[in-house]
Amino acid sequence: MSNPVTVSHKTLIITPEGSSETEELLAHETPYTVTLNDEEIGSSMVLPVGLEEFGVGFLFGQGYITKPGEVIEVMVCPDGRIAVYADVDEQIRHEVIITSGCGGTGKISKEMLEGAFEPLQEAVISFPEIKEFILTVLQASPLGPQTHCVHGCGLWADGRLQAFYEDVGRHNAVDKVLGAILLGRIPANGAVYTTGRLTSDMVLKCARIGIPILMSRTASSSLGLAIAKRAGATLAAYARPERLNVFCHPQRIVV
Amino acid sequence: MSNPVTVSHKTLIITPEGSSETEELLAHETPYTVTLNDEEIGSSMVLPVGLEEFGVGFLFGQGYITKPGEVIEVMVCPDGRIAVYADVDEQIRHEVIITSGCGGTGKISKEMLEGAFEPLQEAVISFPEIKEFILTVLQASPLGPQTHCVHGCGLWADGRLQAFYEDVGRHNAVDKVLGAILLGRIPANGAVYTTGRLTSDMVLKCARIGIPILMSRTASSSLGLAIAKRAGATLAAYARPERLNVFCHPQRIVV
Repeated sequence: MSNPVTVSHKTLIITPEGSSETEELLAHETPYTVTLNDEEIGSSMVLPVGLEEFGVGFLFGQGYITKPGEVIEVMVCPDGRIAVYADVDEQIRHEVIITSGCGGTGKISKEMLEGAFEPLQEAVISFPEIKEFILTVLQASPLGPQTHCVHGCGLWADGRLQAFYEDVGRHNAVDKVLGAILLGRIPANGAVYTTGRLTSDMVLKCARIGIPILMSRTASSSLGLAIAKRAGATLAAYARPERLNVFCHPQRIVV
Repeated sequence: MSNPVTVSHKTLIITPEGSSETEELLAHETPYTVTLNDEEIGSSMVLPVGLEEFGVGFLFGQGYITKPGEVIEVMVCPDGRIAVYADVDEQIRHEVIITSGCGGTGKISKEMLEGAFEPLQEAVISFPEIKEFILTVLQASPLGPQTHCVHGCGLWADGRLQAFYEDVGRHNAVDKVLGAILLGRIPANGAVYTTGRLTSDMVLKCARIGIPILMSRTASSSLGLAIAKRAGATLAAYARPERLNVFCHPQRIVV
C-alpha cells in the first residue's frame, strides 16, 4: 500500500530493573499541500486517508469554500498534493488567528470568530442513538488504541452513522467530516462526536457548516463554549453512551 | 485577576434516567497576537499564563528567533498583544507547513524539516530523576484534572525541575518552555516531558533548540520519530516514573 496509516518500529522498554525490546505501531504522519484552482493555499501534516475530504474541509476551515455545491473536482496527486477545483468567486485572504487547535484548519479569521451565525440545521438525538453512535465510533478503528496518536470524528444523522474519519490532528479528523458534507456525501443535520477537545475553532467550523449538536469524549474550552452558545449549538462534553454533560442548548438531547 | 486561567459554568448531566445540574471548570482560551519589533507575526489561542515565554517560543517555532541572547524585551499588553523586541537581522517568511500539532508554532518551514541539525546539548537522565520529574510535573497543577483541556510541559536539567508550563495547546506549552530557554531563564541541556503527543513539529522545535531528551506521557508519530532519529535526540514515549518506552537513542537513559 502506498499510503499505509501505520508504521512499525522496534523500541526498548527501559525500567530500573533492565530493558527489553518490543514492537510499537506509529501513526503515519505526512505532509500534504492543498491547492485551490491550482493556487497553493497551505500544507498540513495528515494521516494519509480520507484525503479528498480533508482537502475540501481544510479549505472550508480557512474560509475559501463556504457551502456544498462549490466543489467541482478533487484530485489527490502522488506528489503529496490535494488539488481542489471549485466554483468560488475570489480568494480573499483574511486576517488569521492560529488556533490552539491542530492541523488543517489552524487558521481562522477574526471575522469568523466575531461574525453572526446562519441558523443551524434542525436535529435531535436520543439516548439509544447516542449509545449506538459513540460505541460504533469507538469500535470503528483499531488505530486509536494501537497508536495512541490519532483522533476520531464521526457524524450521526437521520438515525445512522454517516461518516467516521481519523487523523493525527483532531482538527483534521473534523475537517474530513466537514469535507464529506461539502462534497454532498453526507448531511449536516445531525451530531458530531469527536475524541478531541472542543476548543474555539473546532466548535466554530462545525457551527459554520450548520451542525446543531457537538459532542466530545473530553472537554470544551471557555471560548469553545462561548461560540457554541452564540451559534445556538448543543455542546456536550465527556460524552458517554449513557451520560452527557451538556454545557449549553440541551433541548436537542431527547431521552 | 484580569487573566484567570479557568472559568466556571453550570452544566446539565443528562442520562436516560434524568438530569441534574453540576458545575464545571473550563480552561480559559483567549487570543493573543505576537509582534516582533512592532511587526505583527501571528496570533494564537492561548491559556493566558507564561505569556512572555509564549511570545518568544512562538517566534522561535516560526523561525524568527533562533537562539538565546537575541531577545531584548518582551511586553504583554492589555489589548491582547505580546510585543517582542529582538536583535534579529531580517524577517524572512519561509514556505510554511501547518502541522498536525496545535497552536503557537503550527507553522514550520520545509527547510526546517529537511535541513541538518546542529549538535544537541549533552545530558543523561537517571531513573530516580525521571521519577521525580514526572511525578512533580503531574502534581504541579490541578488544571489538567480540573479542566481536561490543557497540556503540560516541563524541563528537567542539572538535577532539578527547571520549568513547568501549561496551555490549551500542547504546542503552546512546549513553546513556553522554549521561550524560557531563549530568555536565558533555564538551560536546554536536559529532558523535556510533555503530556501531549510527540508529532513532527513538537520534536523538531525541541531538537532545533538543542534539547537532547524528549519524553511524552503518550505516543510519537512516524515523522516525530524520524526527526528525533535524524537529530540524534532520545525519544521516549509512554513515559512513566519507572518505565520508559524508548524509540531511539536510548544511551541517555541511565538506570
